[in-house]
Amino acid sequence: MITRAPFCCSLSIIFVITAWSHALAQSPPVRDVPARSIPVPETVSPQLQRIIGAPVSPNWNVFPKTAAEWKVQVDAAAAEAARRLPALREQLRVAIEPQTINGARAYVLTPRDVPAENRNRLLIHVHGGCYVSNPGESGTSEATMMAGFGRFKVISVDYRMPPEAYFPAAIEDTIAVLKAAHSMVPARNVGLFGSSAGGGLTLATVLKAKQDGLPLPGAIAPGTPMADLTEAGDTFHTNAMIDNVLIARGASCDTRARLYANGHDLRDPLLSPVYGDLRGFPPTMLLSGTRDLLLSNTVRMHRKLRQAGVESVLEVFEGQPHGAWYRDASVPESKDAFEEIARFFDKHLGK
Amino acid sequence: MITRAPFCCSLSIIFVITAWSHALAQSPPVRDVPARSIPVPETVSPQLQRIIGAPVSPNWNVFPKTAAEWKVQVDAAAAEAARRLPALREQLRVAIEPQTINGARAYVLTPRDVPAENRNRLLIHVHGGCYVSNPGESGTSEATMMAGFGRFKVISVDYRMPPEAYFPAAIEDTIAVLKAAHSMVPARNVGLFGSSAGGGLTLATVLKAKQDGLPLPGAIAPGTPMADLTEAGDTFHTNAMIDNVLIARGASCDTRARLYANGHDLRDPLLSPVYGDLRGFPPTMLLSGTRDLLLSNTVRMHRKLRQAGVESVLEVFEGQPHGAWYRDASVPESKDAFEEIARFFDKHLGK
Repeated sequence: MITRAPFCCSLSIIFVITAWSHALAQSPPVRDVPARSIPVPETVSPQLQRIIGAPVSPNWNVFPKTAAEWKVQVDAAAAEAARRLPALREQLRVAIEPQTINGARAYVLTPRDVPAENRNRLLIHVHGGCYVSNPGESGTSEATMMAGFGRFKVISVDYRMPPEAYFPAAIEDTIAVLKAAHSMVPARNVGLFGSSAGGGLTLATVLKAKQDGLPLPGAIAPGTPMADLTEAGDTFHTNAMIDNVLIARGASCDTRARLYANGHDLRDPLLSPVYGDLRGFPPTMLLSGTRDLLLSNTVRMHRKLRQAGVESVLEVFEGQPHGAWYRDASVPESKDAFEEIARFFDKHLGK
Repeated sequence: MITRAPFCCSLSIIFVITAWSHALAQSPPVRDVPARSIPVPETVSPQLQRIIGAPVSPNWNVFPKTAAEWKVQVDAAAAEAARRLPALREQLRVAIEPQTINGARAYVLTPRDVPAENRNRLLIHVHGGCYVSNPGESGTSEATMMAGFGRFKVISVDYRMPPEAYFPAAIEDTIAVLKAAHSMVPARNVGLFGSSAGGGLTLATVLKAKQDGLPLPGAIAPGTPMADLTEAGDTFHTNAMIDNVLIARGASCDTRARLYANGHDLRDPLLSPVYGDLRGFPPTMLLSGTRDLLLSNTVRMHRKLRQAGVESVLEVFEGQPHGAWYRDASVPESKDAFEEIARFFDKHLGK
């Protein structure tokens, strides 16, 4: 059983401070933080408040035993996610077309109107889902928002996942689409983006393209990237139980990532890009939220990129748990985030 | 009495997750977070680990009753801080000279060597200390690091504080120095920076300069700004007791800020710049840390600036509590931070 929070936000601050001083008098290097009741912030929109105050993600601590059992859980979630997509595409005036591109499965998201400055540009999207979830069309939600809010043509890579294939299949599929993109528009006009596992794969794909001597994208935007699968990073602890999506270290997402890694060393830069050689990376925009379990992943990646001389910029959104800005297109902060990413691509991509 | 943390980091993750699932089953909009023991992160330098693992700041919950009693506490801390400054100046090869500039008390920090590109540039520093602390020379530590790591000439404003004077005296003194700077170098060659209360005052000074029709600085760098004295913001809750400097809402720093405000409406943009009209602000660099109680202040300010069309950039440092990057010049992350600020000023200031 868990001990209930001894304090509540309705008690006076003075009482809390008096009680806390007892705890702090010990002052150990390990910081003992008492139980707390944390209110939903009033500094975000009412729509975002609902996302921050929502129950924790289903299945966060349900661990199927085999890849095949994972697939049952994954497919159920994917069917649920896919049901919402037709309305999203209608709202944002975006058309979808499944294609096979250079041998890789993909979906092409095309806005009904593409402004002149974006007609010779192309974005490649790598979806999230802890390297195991969001197969097929269900992985296109973030790509649809980018196409809709940014008015870019977007190719969303439906990369192979367990149990169909394991590391590094996802990177190979993204590289295949990147190569194909070079026959469509100049390499400098290609942007690469995606969040969570998609953020990790965005970074890993650039590392692989560097290794293979391929032209790099003109700019990349990895959101809250799974940049360090070894679970190093302070916010794995400070934001544990505060992030209602990833919840804590060792929960479902990490378990799925290890399934994908399939026994490979988690410090391999193609699995944990924060350990990679980042010199020569294109301009990069990283995004996270103050409640994000991967805030440390994000800011560590940003500092490493800056230290490697890369033009990296950072956005951190008030109160947001993991990847909240692409949960619901009707949230004002979602539009704000995608318009920020669009301005970044507009600034850095060739025309 | 406080309930001791029922879990410890040495227990297995699986056990923690099992226990936590009971707490989460309730899923209320208010998030109940159980007691935790948070280790010092291994993703920062050993020197920074000592700062993150240090005991909480003295006097965080000691509240003198009058401005005169505050002065006794403040002077004792200032004497302690000032003792460390000669060694810091020697280490960074920076000279100090007290001056009265346009009627305001100030200290001029001059590096032994100023590179050619900075000889026609000037930085103005506004120190922190919750609007009440760090009088006289004791407020020059951050300015000394900026002068030393960035090789800029820096004027640190020793603005009037309670009980000598109250809001808006600090802004008046900074404006006086800003006006004087315009007779020394072109306005575009002036940078303005400072952290905590100094970050709030940096922003408030630009708002006041706008109101008064003065030329604005060429760029500003407010660190972890006290940009919202109403105590709104999610990290006041999520980072409570995790930040070992500010500790929690309603602790000493907020009490000092209210002493300075002296009964004025805390939503006045000259006290809480996040509520101000930010259009036309110069390029801005904001800085914070993942454990900072004012991380929300910082990222909210950043988004407001971006939404007002300002070229604002954000730096968030791994594991750092409030203002950790200017505590100790021998910490590698301090050098990294000041060199980042220096590059920002170099990019945006006139020569």
